[in-house]
Amino acid sequence: MWLRTSCELSFYIAVPTPFILMLRPRSNAQQWVAKEEYKISPHVLVYEHTDGYSNLYQRLIAPEGAFSIRTSADVKVVDQLDQTPGAPFVEVQNLPDQVLSYLLPSRYCESDRFNEMAIEITNGKAPGYDQVASIEKWLCKRILYTPGESNFAISAVEVNQRQSGVCRDLAHLGIALCRSLSIPARLVVGYLYDLKPMDLHAWFEAYVGDRWYTFDAVHQGARAGYVAVGYGRDAADVAVFNQFGPSVFPTVQTVRVEKIDEFI
Amino acid sequence: MWLRTSCELSFYIAVPTPFILMLRPRSNAQQWVAKEEYKISPHVLVYEHTDGYSNLYQRLIAPEGAFSIRTSADVKVVDQLDQTPGAPFVEVQNLPDQVLSYLLPSRYCESDRFNEMAIEITNGKAPGYDQVASIEKWLCKRILYTPGESNFAISAVEVNQRQSGVCRDLAHLGIALCRSLSIPARLVVGYLYDLKPMDLHAWFEAYVGDRWYTFDAVHQGARAGYVAVGYGRDAADVAVFNQFGPSVFPTVQTVRVEKIDEFI
Amino acid sequence: MWLRTSCELSFYIAVPTPFILMLRPRSNAQQWVAKEEYKISPHVLVYEHTDGYSNLYQRLIAPEGAFSIRTSADVKVVDQLDQTPGAPFVEVQNLPDQVLSYLLPSRYCESDRFNEMAIEITNGKAPGYDQVASIEKWLCKRILYTPGESNFAISAVEVNQRQSGVCRDLAHLGIALCRSLSIPARLVVGYLYDLKPMDLHAWFEAYVGDRWYTFDAVHQGARAGYVAVGYGRDAADVAVFNQFGPSVFPTVQTVRVEKIDEFI
Amino acid sequence: MWLRTSCELSFYIAVPTPFILMLRPRSNAQQWVAKEEYKISPHVLVYEHTDGYSNLYQRLIAPEGAFSIRTSADVKVVDQLDQTPGAPFVEVQNLPDQVLSYLLPSRYCESDRFNEMAIEITNGKAPGYDQVASIEKWLCKRILYTPGESNFAISAVEVNQRQSGVCRDLAHLGIALCRSLSIPARLVVGYLYDLKPMDLHAWFEAYVGDRWYTFDAVHQGARAGYVAVGYGRDAADVAVFNQFGPSVFPTVQTVRVEKIDEFI
Repeated sequence: MWLRTSCELSFYIAVPTPFILMLRPRSNAQQWVAKEEYKISPHVLVYEHTDGYSNLYQRLIAPEGAFSIRTSADVKVVDQLDQTPGAPFVEVQNLPDQVLSYLLPSRYCESDRFNEMAIEITNGKAPGYDQVASIEKWLCKRILYTPGESNFAISAVEVNQRQSGVCRDLAHLGIALCRSLSIPARLVVGYLYDLKPMDLHAWFEAYVGDRWYTFDAVHQGARAGYVAVGYGRDAADVAVFNQFGPSVFPTVQTVRVEKIDEFI
Repeated sequence: MWLRTSCELSFYIAVPTPFILMLRPRSNAQQWVAKEEYKISPHVLVYEHTDGYSNLYQRLIAPEGAFSIRTSADVKVVDQLDQTPGAPFVEVQNLPDQVLSYLLPSRYCESDRFNEMAIEITNGKAPGYDQVASIEKWLCKRILYTPGESNFAISAVEVNQRQSGVCRDLAHLGIALCRSLSIPARLVVGYLYDLKPMDLHAWFEAYVGDRWYTFDAVHQGARAGYVAVGYGRDAADVAVFNQFGPSVFPTVQTVRVEKIDEFI
Repeated sequence: MWLRTSCELSFYIAVPTPFILMLRPRSNAQQWVAKEEYKISPHVLVYEHTDGYSNLYQRLIAPEGAFSIRTSADVKVVDQLDQTPGAPFVEVQNLPDQVLSYLLPSRYCESDRFNEMAIEITNGKAPGYDQVASIEKWLCKRILYTPGESNFAISAVEVNQRQSGVCRDLAHLGIALCRSLSIPARLVVGYLYDLKPMDLHAWFEAYVGDRWYTFDAVHQGARAGYVAVGYGRDAADVAVFNQFGPSVFPTVQTVRVEKIDEFI
Repeated sequence: MWLRTSCELSFYIAVPTPFILMLRPRSNAQQWVAKEEYKISPHVLVYEHTDGYSNLYQRLIAPEGAFSIRTSADVKVVDQLDQTPGAPFVEVQNLPDQVLSYLLPSRYCESDRFNEMAIEITNGKAPGYDQVASIEKWLCKRILYTPGESNFAISAVEVNQRQSGVCRDLAHLGIALCRSLSIPARLVVGYLYDLKPMDLHAWFEAYVGDRWYTFDAVHQGARAGYVAVGYGRDAADVAVFNQFGPSVFPTVQTVRVEKIDEFI
């Protein structure tokens, strides 16, 4: 399946403001970026680097006045992401080194507080994929998905208290539950085809069997139409934009995902 | 100054248990490890790796029964760690890339919640080193240091509510306050000569001017006798030991730091 | 200046053949990639990764039959790359760690064999930038530039014997001479506006003062119109394509670089 | 088996000279460093870092006059390194990313020049481990091992012309032959118990099956008593000491390896 994603952010900037942006998808085994645009108006000097999670990020100083960023990408994604019920739990001693940090608690995923709850939710499930699938199902049934109502992130403990949240919040709770069972889990930020209402999306991946698998408490069981832009331990690591100094919110934020014919 | 540090941990292990240990100090500009021992009884297969913060860590599976780890090191440390009152705040756009992640909130340092408080504490101070020094002083005066009373970490928000904590807790609050002012800050775990009561210690570093500086809310202004073992965003990243499965606590934990003559 | 670069490679593949490609330019302080296309026909599964030099590379298996790759990019480049005559030599002990490996000899740059020659060429020049500039000038005068006559790389020693070579060969000799003076130097592969005959290009960078500077023995003193695609110790690290198994050469290789109006 | 290794280097330094040393063994699955000493006389400021191959290296400036380095380590090594005749060749597309760079030619291993020769040597052998074993055997029979006769490295092409060399030279030729068959190979520098005459040693590893295996043209088939200190593409990457400025050679170089009782 070929998708065209686009994201437009417009700001009004009062004082020159440093930004760190994460808006450039990378090609990997699940997605191939065949075409891409990244426009900054007015154009300023940008530095691009790779962070510890292999995300590309852009650093710039937004000048005073109207400032906008428009990105788009034509991406071939796999028609159906893999699901492997029964994929086994990997004992900690057998996890690859680069996966270990995804076992640790993080800002929005206080996994050290969820062990009992996770055991209860996954009761009777085979360790590994099936546990994560039961967590995803539980989130879907028990935590109310309230899109579009959040300006800043809350942590898994808070999500669990409120019993509701945006996609990112549900993902954080899912991650905290997985890690509390010693299953590595990470946040993914990106696009989802046919998401309603359309917006940037967040979901999570868990490491079972011998690889990462995609889970999404908002679209339980659906496994198609995802374009990943960033990976990290939680939303603290994967912000589409991080801005420093006086708070600035986009005056316009437009996100689109369309199917396109095979890229010619 | 030459120091001999030692740490002995003894456990009784009920079922084979994976551990990740961080007990091997590394040489750097502040310290030179001239001699080192690391004994594991009974000896088991150990894998050693370097994490994303350049810490060496050891992975092993502790077998059933008595299990102990004894480490010691002869280390030359600088006589006096640098202090540079007046060292300026570095604007975000000028920070080196590898320092950026220390601006983000983390599990035990919810820096996104402390901006107002940090502004108040540092009121009237020049941006940079002097702000951090005033945070260190504030912690020292306002947060009661209660050594030895903690089995698991609490976060900066909780430390601030309780108004007391162990060295690690004070450091976490210091880090959260620094980051809320866009000053990169990180946790350091290691040894401190003449600490009373003697134990493993934790303190923090802040990036101002063009480098990291040491701060310690427990020993405000003191800048000598530190041996660092691990660095990270907070205690989630730098645990002396992380153990998976049923909880295990050391039956014995002995820490010593002595002055020695120049290493012969 | 805005440039549109494009490169098309067509192959006829006899047996399925693994390729490693390096054809995706990255944004950095000298260039901003505002638009990019990367088409593979027929489309096959591609993995993209970052190597130890921060280059993006693509791994794929080319299927039997006609196989082609077409890339293009719209890139804003600085109007004039910096030149800083007089920028000083950096003593080895003061070089940043990540620069040290560019002091070592490598496959095509046997810097351990060029010390006397380098001293002679740079005689009377101030250590640092001026030495490198005199090496660039010497290469330009003494080594005949023979574009398009090379199918595989030769080393600096061989280039020096032949007294002629393609752009990559001249760059290799320049790098070997710099390193023999303890000046870190690296190869850059990419595009150059107005290169005649148009082709992919290679040049070199040297680390003096406190940063990398661009040098090009083919276009001595010219410092405009460069788009970098890959960096490495020499051509062994930065091949536009590396192919394994029976040798395959492109049946068509088309390279274009045009000026475009500011990207809209 | 427990081994105590030691290496002493003494220099007479005429002008302050920057050194990069690689003398600190690291623990890994094959070896556990239980005790270690690293003495520098006179003691100077040392920086320690990790290079791109995970080696620890030390940077310092040797002062004028007598300068010495004494290191020793008590290391538990596996009794017998694994040998797996029949372990299969890994097709390039299936190699892990971090292994790819060991396929490329390097300063002392011009693997691009050895394909025909490698095919001839390994004629009739199953692709993979058995090919490498036949290369090791060929080296042992055909290239005369002449310990202690080399002050600076020669490349695989030169070793093949001379038909003789030190351990490092034989390893370089082995590596070049492996890579020319698309088998990743790397140099290891360290200690070997019972080596005669005793000295620092160099051997090589090849990646077949799903891991690195040890080969040694000097001690064909022997697989015990190895302590690794550094890994790299070839001797350019793994020098026990690299010194810059006017050449300096050790006035004394003493290497010892003894068996010890289990470390208490």
